[in-house]
Amino acid sequence: MSNNDSLASITDQMREFTRVRDWHQFHDPKSLLLALVGEIGELSELLQWIPAQEASELAQQEPLNHRLGEEMSDVLLYLVRLADVCGVDLGQAVNEKLTANEQRFPVSDVHGVAPLKE
Amino acid sequence: MSNNDSLASITDQMREFTRVRDWHQFHDPKSLLLALVGEIGELSELLQWIPAQEASELAQQEPLNHRLGEEMSDVLLYLVRLADVCGVDLGQAVNEKLTANEQRFPVSDVHGVAPLKE
Amino acid sequence: MSNNDSLASITDQMREFTRVRDWHQFHDPKSLLLALVGEIGELSELLQWIPAQEASELAQQEPLNHRLGEEMSDVLLYLVRLADVCGVDLGQAVNEKLTANEQRFPVSDVHGVAPLKE
Amino acid sequence: MSNNDSLASITDQMREFTRVRDWHQFHDPKSLLLALVGEIGELSELLQWIPAQEASELAQQEPLNHRLGEEMSDVLLYLVRLADVCGVDLGQAVNEKLTANEQRFPVSDVHGVAPLKE
Repeated sequence: MSNNDSLASITDQMREFTRVRDWHQFHDPKSLLLALVGEIGELSELLQWIPAQEASELAQQEPLNHRLGEEMSDVLLYLVRLADVCGVDLGQAVNEKLTANEQRFPVSDVHGVAPLKE
Repeated sequence: MSNNDSLASITDQMREFTRVRDWHQFHDPKSLLLALVGEIGELSELLQWIPAQEASELAQQEPLNHRLGEEMSDVLLYLVRLADVCGVDLGQAVNEKLTANEQRFPVSDVHGVAPLKE
Repeated sequence: MSNNDSLASITDQMREFTRVRDWHQFHDPKSLLLALVGEIGELSELLQWIPAQEASELAQQEPLNHRLGEEMSDVLLYLVRLADVCGVDLGQAVNEKLTANEQRFPVSDVHGVAPLKE
Repeated sequence: MSNNDSLASITDQMREFTRVRDWHQFHDPKSLLLALVGEIGELSELLQWIPAQEASELAQQEPLNHRLGEEMSDVLLYLVRLADVCGVDLGQAVNEKLTANEQRFPVSDVHGVAPLKE
């Protein structure tokens, strides 16, 4: 697995990518979040008209699979960049969240039941 | 650095978290993408009314910093889950994207210039 | 039909709602757009785990129908407010867009075919 | 003001636009919501890198003003379409929401204070 599988490594690479381009001036939290929303929109456009029951199968076939990977990567790269400028250790935050979710959703309580929002 | 810093590890943990709760039935691509959008919305609500020029500083202070970490984690967890059900190796996709971005945005061409969309 | 069915009327009411609360100071385009994203997120949370094939029917039943109306209204109110601060006549813009879409998507070309993004 | 300023008129035009193209088959709530997210993303891409303090002024200048109107229109058209397939009377829902907001945010309580989410 490449170093890019590590959030810390991706964070470092994005920080350097930004630094050498002098793009840090554009990377305030609200701007990065809007850029993240833009990528979420591109990801949505890839799936919006695909019938829900066919989406899983089609998503694993080309050319869609590769396009999904590209847009998911853009989402992750802006998310990692946003976390960095906000001083958030994303790896640690995810670690805490995974632990919290285990306690918040006991298997015995939510087995087979979607936690619907109201 | 915890194992949760690895996308592969986070992917495995989310897959197991879903399996033991029998939530896989709800995790089709379009549903997971809408769940991801829901978390992006919660992240936006944390920053929306903060003056842009104060956002970076406030984002690094509590209680905002911790809340941002929680919502960013939710975004990442659904993104990782979405990639998994779509058969996308997110670590590899990010690796390819970082390489592509280096070629797409030569430092000499874009130094200090934001790539505005039209 | 109430005056609120008119975009111009909704725009005026939101402008006055904002003015009397002295909230204009918070209503810059990027902040309003993030607030709009926040409401899109709340709308998504209402539909995310509902099976696609049941969504149309469930959306027309209570309590979901009323909740959807509330969140769709929040989306529209922030959109109208965003258009106002950007100096966009939303009614006129929609008029032009509807005309453009008729020409962009000739019935003979797209009948029964979803315009998939690539 | 054109008929398109009326939500009911826009709803009718979008319903007919969809019917003659036999696109109703694609317009389930979750798909329309993802299409709406796609347009929100395009709107975000127009503003993401613009300095917040310059956004209001630049948004009122061409070519940005026209582009914003186009994307805001796409957002509104999909929102109106989504409301229609969900059996939501958007004009009535907005009417109720505006009344509820007046009561929820008394001027004396929130004057000059942004209602921050936590």
